[in-house]
Amino acid sequence: MERINDANTFDTLHTSCSTLHSQTRKGFVMIRRAIYPGTFDPVTNGHLDIIRRACKIFDEIIVAVAESEAKKPMFDHLRRIEMARAVTRDNSKVRVIGFENLLVNLSDELDANFIIRGLRAVSDFEYELQMGYANASLKKDLETIYLMPSLEHAFVSSSVVRSILHFDGRVDHLLPVEAYEMVMQERRRER
Amino acid sequence: MERINDANTFDTLHTSCSTLHSQTRKGFVMIRRAIYPGTFDPVTNGHLDIIRRACKIFDEIIVAVAESEAKKPMFDHLRRIEMARAVTRDNSKVRVIGFENLLVNLSDELDANFIIRGLRAVSDFEYELQMGYANASLKKDLETIYLMPSLEHAFVSSSVVRSILHFDGRVDHLLPVEAYEMVMQERRRER
Amino acid sequence: MERINDANTFDTLHTSCSTLHSQTRKGFVMIRRAIYPGTFDPVTNGHLDIIRRACKIFDEIIVAVAESEAKKPMFDHLRRIEMARAVTRDNSKVRVIGFENLLVNLSDELDANFIIRGLRAVSDFEYELQMGYANASLKKDLETIYLMPSLEHAFVSSSVVRSILHFDGRVDHLLPVEAYEMVMQERRRER
Amino acid sequence: MERINDANTFDTLHTSCSTLHSQTRKGFVMIRRAIYPGTFDPVTNGHLDIIRRACKIFDEIIVAVAESEAKKPMFDHLRRIEMARAVTRDNSKVRVIGFENLLVNLSDELDANFIIRGLRAVSDFEYELQMGYANASLKKDLETIYLMPSLEHAFVSSSVVRSILHFDGRVDHLLPVEAYEMVMQERRRER
Amino acid sequence: MERINDANTFDTLHTSCSTLHSQTRKGFVMIRRAIYPGTFDPVTNGHLDIIRRACKIFDEIIVAVAESEAKKPMFDHLRRIEMARAVTRDNSKVRVIGFENLLVNLSDELDANFIIRGLRAVSDFEYELQMGYANASLKKDLETIYLMPSLEHAFVSSSVVRSILHFDGRVDHLLPVEAYEMVMQERRRER
Amino acid sequence: MERINDANTFDTLHTSCSTLHSQTRKGFVMIRRAIYPGTFDPVTNGHLDIIRRACKIFDEIIVAVAESEAKKPMFDHLRRIEMARAVTRDNSKVRVIGFENLLVNLSDELDANFIIRGLRAVSDFEYELQMGYANASLKKDLETIYLMPSLEHAFVSSSVVRSILHFDGRVDHLLPVEAYEMVMQERRRER
Repeated sequence: MERINDANTFDTLHTSCSTLHSQTRKGFVMIRRAIYPGTFDPVTNGHLDIIRRACKIFDEIIVAVAESEAKKPMFDHLRRIEMARAVTRDNSKVRVIGFENLLVNLSDELDANFIIRGLRAVSDFEYELQMGYANASLKKDLETIYLMPSLEHAFVSSSVVRSILHFDGRVDHLLPVEAYEMVMQERRRER
Repeated sequence: MERINDANTFDTLHTSCSTLHSQTRKGFVMIRRAIYPGTFDPVTNGHLDIIRRACKIFDEIIVAVAESEAKKPMFDHLRRIEMARAVTRDNSKVRVIGFENLLVNLSDELDANFIIRGLRAVSDFEYELQMGYANASLKKDLETIYLMPSLEHAFVSSSVVRSILHFDGRVDHLLPVEAYEMVMQERRRER
Repeated sequence: MERINDANTFDTLHTSCSTLHSQTRKGFVMIRRAIYPGTFDPVTNGHLDIIRRACKIFDEIIVAVAESEAKKPMFDHLRRIEMARAVTRDNSKVRVIGFENLLVNLSDELDANFIIRGLRAVSDFEYELQMGYANASLKKDLETIYLMPSLEHAFVSSSVVRSILHFDGRVDHLLPVEAYEMVMQERRRER
Repeated sequence: MERINDANTFDTLHTSCSTLHSQTRKGFVMIRRAIYPGTFDPVTNGHLDIIRRACKIFDEIIVAVAESEAKKPMFDHLRRIEMARAVTRDNSKVRVIGFENLLVNLSDELDANFIIRGLRAVSDFEYELQMGYANASLKKDLETIYLMPSLEHAFVSSSVVRSILHFDGRVDHLLPVEAYEMVMQERRRER
Repeated sequence: MERINDANTFDTLHTSCSTLHSQTRKGFVMIRRAIYPGTFDPVTNGHLDIIRRACKIFDEIIVAVAESEAKKPMFDHLRRIEMARAVTRDNSKVRVIGFENLLVNLSDELDANFIIRGLRAVSDFEYELQMGYANASLKKDLETIYLMPSLEHAFVSSSVVRSILHFDGRVDHLLPVEAYEMVMQERRRER
Repeated sequence: MERINDANTFDTLHTSCSTLHSQTRKGFVMIRRAIYPGTFDPVTNGHLDIIRRACKIFDEIIVAVAESEAKKPMFDHLRRIEMARAVTRDNSKVRVIGFENLLVNLSDELDANFIIRGLRAVSDFEYELQMGYANASLKKDLETIYLMPSLEHAFVSSSVVRSILHFDGRVDHLLPVEAYEMVMQERRRER
């Protein structure tokens, strides 16, 4: 089981893991690097809100798009990576990568010991706590940081977006412009 | 994506949307019309309890049976519509329709700005809040009203009924008579 | 234990219960009357939001301000009644009364079988369910209707307002104008 | 729909239901027999913790491994029964059986009126309450007993184990030795 | 800080701890003894329901009425002990004692390693889990058993009863006959 | 309403707010400063766990001990400040101050826009979310970061410690050594 490494994906990655590593090592100042993992199916305003908040705290945010084939995502892996890239293009602190691996392994590879998670509802919270403890049982110094989206994004989730999309409803107020355009393009192609 | 409108379904509908519309417009008194949406797979005593409570508050209740193909329902769409009709036959305030659409669109079509939802457990509650805010983001004047079933129906859900049915267990105390008979008939047919 | 009936209070009530009763009885159309009970210490934008939503569903809303001496309220009973009146002055569907009684008794006195409650968080929800079942055990045909405030008011509660007021923080964005002015007036008087 | 009774399964059962019955009837002392039902996909340290606690309270614990084909388990039914047996081999109070039936029917067959359930999280709790009330509606004297695993097992669930296994992560700290070995053996066979 | 031991209380206790101890030691069969601790202010049908369920599982139930002076109970400690006694008079498995001590110390004194707790709502559940873990941190082999009241008692709590009593509302359907009579007697005396 | 500034307190503060300010301004590197507010009545291993985690993320942690007179704390304000100091003495990243103010004002005074909160249970979580949104409504760029204590500290809260202390129970496994000694000293003095 490894990180996606076929030619196509690698080409779209731009920043390889080794580059990230060297950046940390060469400076005198410890670089605080955090992973923001998720399926991003699709990237929403809620995700973007969390990314912006994380940037205030950390020097580098790795948005890690999980393959999540078991969830049968609406958008394919590469498309979701592209969406996340498009949405964070102007943010120099953010790198986007794809992964199909355990979070603890990714954290080793990237030399990043902080995990960012957004919290919305109680059921989120419990699942997050359970996964947080599971990850901590696998890697002791892995730290999970929970951030709260702003109130207006508190109900936005990828699954809400998908169920509106399923009936061709309006989602432009729930997605970043770049993600919205890619979603619409994808749907026109499907017809 | 549209409301089901093939001949068979239409025939069983009895009350078309246009009839409902004209009823509202011709009178001097504003008619309070509410939609009670759900999958009703099958209709339970819990649903009937909520319908009866809603009838005390509203002039007209549209029980809207969602197609919900993604949930792979145990009973097919037309059968679920028939069950809901049989169960509410004697209630002149209730109309039953099928739909496969966004709730906000249905609300436009039916000129009904109230949504009825039953509340049971905390996880229900959170999901309902999330959907309520999502719907409100799509149509500002859509109002969701939450009702509480009586205590004896607080644990009855369609999924509990289905899992008992899966092992041929007793469900007559959980279903309205008419729904129970249709469920038993269906199961005899299957063998 | 009775409803407050000293001269002062009565004077500010304007609408006595008997008036409310006769209004219901004389018309041919059944008037849907709902009680919105609470401590309103103080009235917030969240309360006003719920009142406005309730007005879409019911013909008459009785905002019933509980004395709640056990909670040691920050504002006294009469002041809270006045605040609720000032805030709903222009809304002809709303009447404000004070009460120190069981909700089920108030419902008998006012011939109002609907109770309105706002829902915010899970802990709210559980308490509401427990009280809803307790009330239903005392009066079978009492119906509790739960409404959801709009997202921007979802975190506003009287207790949040009081704890900000305790440190002289800003609350003008959390209170209706009339309530805000009365709160500020009260605090100037205290010094 | 019946309990699994093909030759293979029966052979691995060792203790048939009739044996269990006679044990209860012949003694003077009432034997307290409890069922601990689950999918056990796979058996975890959390399950074992609950079994040990249950043994302090009851004379006999029937670990009942549900077929649960609807959940598409990672390990097949017979393998899960074998795992549960291996893990409880030295515990004379424990019997392991497979079942594909309603819990209330199993309770009748085994003459066991106590159900053991482990409680971890709030979402667990609500589902358990709903199932507990559903079961009680089918068999009045069926008693469900909830036990709390020790803190270090509070996050261990079969689904956490499966998602770590999916990426070949380390699970030896989450599983009893015997279960761990069988899981590893199974995975070697698959390659 | 010790168990209440003034003459009056002792007189009403009937069964001293030493008697309980000797009962366990002299027999050949291990006696399963459980403590059901609470404030019982007042004893409700919900409590009685849990006691009856506990009696099916354990040989002896010690209903332990906490002094709980910090909670400023409506009924005084001795009165609450008497109520619990009156309500369980005909049940030979039940003993009622008062205590003002840590539960872990009481468990040592009574040689009883099982604690019974009733579960109603999510907030109950979380508090119970926290106290359960705290107790387990003080005494490793203390086992907490959670039982679910029947559905009709799921909303009954002492605090609901007290708030209805506060307004002289009807509580006879929420209390055991004996407790109801003692509550009414107490209230007549107060006037 | 101001930060405590009487001679005694000031003397024990060591680091005044103005010192903290200048530290931020003079360097080229932006210092990430976070406030960890609480009542700390008393400081527990759970608090210390959160402080250690926060130190991995931030350059400076201000442990801000709220006066919280409304909560009638068991230990007085100065004593709680001293405890927090003793416990974090060897950690150069941590400063301890007392405050009786709104968090948003403290954040302005200290030029610190991050708030640290520990998350344990669902009820914690909801209260935290509500306070987080309330604070964000008062100061837009205030960021709240939620951290999860390690599993073994997940049940430890000041209120659990206080209720064990109330009955002279053992708390040495729940408190840092320095806090434990100060608590014991305080209790000896009281006798």
